[in-house]
Amino acid sequence: MIIIGIDPGTCVTGYGIIRTEGMSYSPIDYGCIKPPSALKLTDRYLIIFNGVEELLNKFEPDALVVETQYVKKNPQSALKLGMARGVIIVAARRKGVQVYEYVPTKAKLAIAGSGRASKHQVQRMVQRLLNLPEPPCPEDAADALALAICHAQALKQRQLLGTEI
Amino acid sequence: MIIIGIDPGTCVTGYGIIRTEGMSYSPIDYGCIKPPSALKLTDRYLIIFNGVEELLNKFEPDALVVETQYVKKNPQSALKLGMARGVIIVAARRKGVQVYEYVPTKAKLAIAGSGRASKHQVQRMVQRLLNLPEPPCPEDAADALALAICHAQALKQRQLLGTEI
Repeated sequence: MIIIGIDPGTCVTGYGIIRTEGMSYSPIDYGCIKPPSALKLTDRYLIIFNGVEELLNKFEPDALVVETQYVKKNPQSALKLGMARGVIIVAARRKGVQVYEYVPTKAKLAIAGSGRASKHQVQRMVQRLLNLPEPPCPEDAADALALAICHAQALKQRQLLGTEI
Repeated sequence: MIIIGIDPGTCVTGYGIIRTEGMSYSPIDYGCIKPPSALKLTDRYLIIFNGVEELLNKFEPDALVVETQYVKKNPQSALKLGMARGVIIVAARRKGVQVYEYVPTKAKLAIAGSGRASKHQVQRMVQRLLNLPEPPCPEDAADALALAICHAQALKQRQLLGTEI
């Protein structure tokens, strides 16, 4: 089974793709989509959409995983983040790929054994779990890989299966 | 020139399409995209995307117009609204259709002569300006037509031209 995790953002959208077989998982690809900041916002969303679509075409994942967004403060930031998130979800659903979400604490707990793990701890644990030569960079890619691993673990332990959205 | 106005929403997305020639404009179509509320949110965004794409294919508009969103209170609502908005913008940009936005007060001012016009006043003025037999329903469709008319008027008065986003 192939799982893609995505950490959406207007500036940087991290992605991480893993293969899971039985009790083991291995990295396939990770990185980020970074639309030039000089572009109009509308064209940046188009680049995110096209980038995700390209990844879906190339790796044909069985599931796409995003973080459950809790935006507590700035509604304007929430609007922008929502736009990136909507674009990614539709890119997946257009291809019939199921979308799952996990609350950030659950993803951190699955990876680092603590819901309050730091970004640095998540990077190191993702490196260890996937046998990578170095911690995955940028952080957005590490977070995306963490989401994919979280879903892989949840699949193994059905009781932890994230809500299909 | 053909202009499509869109009033995004997760429950109801209104649309209104007009043709503008010289100093006159006429209605082409209006209505709303209403994804079944029983569906998962991700599939509702897919229905909005597909619905907008269908309208763009059918009517081949030169411009798509949305309202500038000011979300003051609830960040979770802003996130949902952003998702619908992102999906609509990407549907347009994928086809090379330019996207414009206007602040709500400017659209109301253009239609009803007051930035504080009520929903009802907007509906009546849209009816009058487009020579419709009755006020356009639902309100979301009237708001979408108002946005399209606002852009048509702004094109005539270049100094009012909305910011291309």
